[in-house]
Amino acid sequence: MLSILDLRARISAGTLTPAGAIDLCREAIDARDGDIGAFVAIDPDPAIPEEGPLAGIAVGVKDIIDTAALPTQMGSVIYEGWRPRADAAVVSRLKERGAVPLAKTTTTAFASSDPTATRNPHDPGHTPGGSSAGSAAAVGAGLLPLALGTQTAGSVIRPASFCGCAAIKPSFRLIPTVGVKTYSWALDTVGLFAAGVGDLAYALAAVTGRDGIDEGAASAPRIAVVRQDFADAAEPAAEAALARACAAAERAGAHVSDRALPPELAAAWERHRLIQDFEAGQALGWEYRHHRDALPPQVRGHLDASGEITPAAYDDARRHAHRARRVLKDLFGEFDAILTYSAPGPAPVSLASTGDARFNRLWTLMGVPCVNVPVPGDRLPVGVQVIGRFGGDGQALAVARLIENALRG
Amino acid sequence: MLSILDLRARISAGTLTPAGAIDLCREAIDARDGDIGAFVAIDPDPAIPEEGPLAGIAVGVKDIIDTAALPTQMGSVIYEGWRPRADAAVVSRLKERGAVPLAKTTTTAFASSDPTATRNPHDPGHTPGGSSAGSAAAVGAGLLPLALGTQTAGSVIRPASFCGCAAIKPSFRLIPTVGVKTYSWALDTVGLFAAGVGDLAYALAAVTGRDGIDEGAASAPRIAVVRQDFADAAEPAAEAALARACAAAERAGAHVSDRALPPELAAAWERHRLIQDFEAGQALGWEYRHHRDALPPQVRGHLDASGEITPAAYDDARRHAHRARRVLKDLFGEFDAILTYSAPGPAPVSLASTGDARFNRLWTLMGVPCVNVPVPGDRLPVGVQVIGRFGGDGQALAVARLIENALRG
Repeated sequence: MLSILDLRARISAGTLTPAGAIDLCREAIDARDGDIGAFVAIDPDPAIPEEGPLAGIAVGVKDIIDTAALPTQMGSVIYEGWRPRADAAVVSRLKERGAVPLAKTTTTAFASSDPTATRNPHDPGHTPGGSSAGSAAAVGAGLLPLALGTQTAGSVIRPASFCGCAAIKPSFRLIPTVGVKTYSWALDTVGLFAAGVGDLAYALAAVTGRDGIDEGAASAPRIAVVRQDFADAAEPAAEAALARACAAAERAGAHVSDRALPPELAAAWERHRLIQDFEAGQALGWEYRHHRDALPPQVRGHLDASGEITPAAYDDARRHAHRARRVLKDLFGEFDAILTYSAPGPAPVSLASTGDARFNRLWTLMGVPCVNVPVPGDRLPVGVQVIGRFGGDGQALAVARLIENALRG
Repeated sequence: MLSILDLRARISAGTLTPAGAIDLCREAIDARDGDIGAFVAIDPDPAIPEEGPLAGIAVGVKDIIDTAALPTQMGSVIYEGWRPRADAAVVSRLKERGAVPLAKTTTTAFASSDPTATRNPHDPGHTPGGSSAGSAAAVGAGLLPLALGTQTAGSVIRPASFCGCAAIKPSFRLIPTVGVKTYSWALDTVGLFAAGVGDLAYALAAVTGRDGIDEGAASAPRIAVVRQDFADAAEPAAEAALARACAAAERAGAHVSDRALPPELAAAWERHRLIQDFEAGQALGWEYRHHRDALPPQVRGHLDASGEITPAAYDDARRHAHRARRVLKDLFGEFDAILTYSAPGPAPVSLASTGDARFNRLWTLMGVPCVNVPVPGDRLPVGVQVIGRFGGDGQALAVARLIENALRG
């Protein structure tokens, strides 16, 4: 994979120019993307800043995120050739910091669950996951050092686990969603994909203006291992990855203990989909009203079902989520991080599904930061998920880096 | 003014058709808008549904709210002639319920504070307020029965007070902001303008799918009168309007008592602007980066200042807001509604300012529902503001209607 920290070190040392770093990406794309199909558009002649903490860093932008210089097509024929007026807030910020939005990456239609044609870089018969399919595949395949995705259920952490790259779904609204197509305003969260946890920390600090975001974290963190029994069991490969991550964390000095989640969290988990679908019915009201027949079957089905959800049921679900957030906040008095599965197992053997978000839904609803750490071992990648308290993105990254280092050592 | 309830009654009785109701608005616009200038675009041939709870209701849509059939120009030359692909969620919902988005109404650039050319319908030398200038003026002048605005500081309640119409800024995200240009994602709230409180309740129920939203409210409500001393004194006309509203509420059986707000609320009020400006700097990053010189001076100044705000100051401000929301929630254990000023006084004698939002900022930051009730008496309108607990939009409307009725009686 292409590492941001490595590219930046070479640029700082004068052995690589920003333009040269962008060319490395173009060469990788030319050589390998034919087998993957991660992109819907590539900028032939982008501005390449010479300065800034992200100078020389090419970024893949999920195609539900607005770009003024490239089409933004939402993974849907309804937006074929659509050109927004402005860059999304996160794209504008990336450019300000020197990054180059080089390409738009594939997305399931409106970031829902109808698969893309993108293939897993580790085995073309497997899904890369979704909805941020192209971003995860591009970084996992070493075509780009940084990509933007969004997560409403599990659309950042799951594809990162399937494609073998690091990723963060930050605290809710740490990165603004301005200029990002809405599916659920209470859930949609912009996330980052990169080669390793250090790359994520560097990029998140640059994007948010929060220098040293992962400094000052606990050196011997207390880690709660959580299996989310309410979401059914994981597959053996995911269980094995979690066990390897636990052992690595202990070797690195962390205090690791199993923990069952209080029932309020299971109750919130059960209601994630209701909140998502109720809001999607409103957010995509124009598309549903005027272009229902052009919607692919899964998102169309979600929007059909949305009409059956009453405001009272939605209000009740939000109250459950609110209660669970307070319970989770108290739980973080006892722990510095939660460690759990990123996905039920490796990428499924199929391009007909983007996989299952059941181990991601709760954390998206809680708005807490989640980091995928790839766990070396199997032919197909499997990751583990490190979760921090709301606003504790730096602590979550620090624990993720500790586990990543220990797994490599 | 044109009343939704009146128009709907005539349509139900068969004495007016939906198309006839739309024609009434066109005739009023032709006769009076030349002196006001409330519109930036009018649809010459809109679809006019025959059915639905809002059939025959023409709506003015603030020009930062996306419409597929009419340009959406954000009050800025940067968006001259811009045509979004889709309708905003609230516009789509209005159409689904039978309403006709007849016109786009003037807005200050990006819903900030640079005045529009719109004039107050009660005196053309006075501001209609802002940022939802055209929507407030159009309803206040009797040109339309319903209009959409947005409030980030005081941009719904203040212009409604200045233009003499009823308005509601509902609970945060009760009406989705999907397809609405963002200034501050933690604050921006879509609101409604109409002739009276009953019209607002009817329209809000239709837009949100919450039938009977204002039923079941307390019949002898406990009302806390709050003067927001931290925001300086109001002018005599606003004080007199508040006194008249208090007396009317007591005549109608309400329990009215003065109340000083706890210090946590003043602390939050002080930090509203910081949150607003920090987020605006990111939300309008593309406009600032690429078109700074095309921005009018006030919004440009706000964005210049935004760059000086640190993430740590923003985080601190959000913690203060969070704390204040909990204090306010407890306070609503003792009261059914808060009654306070809608604005410091009547509309200022000038078109160079949109007036002062200092009595509105706190409530926008708290996310609680606010209703403007016009208080008859003076030549230039003055309103009072009824505030409910978060999610208690129906209760706030019921108390506002009680005061409105008592003021008329």
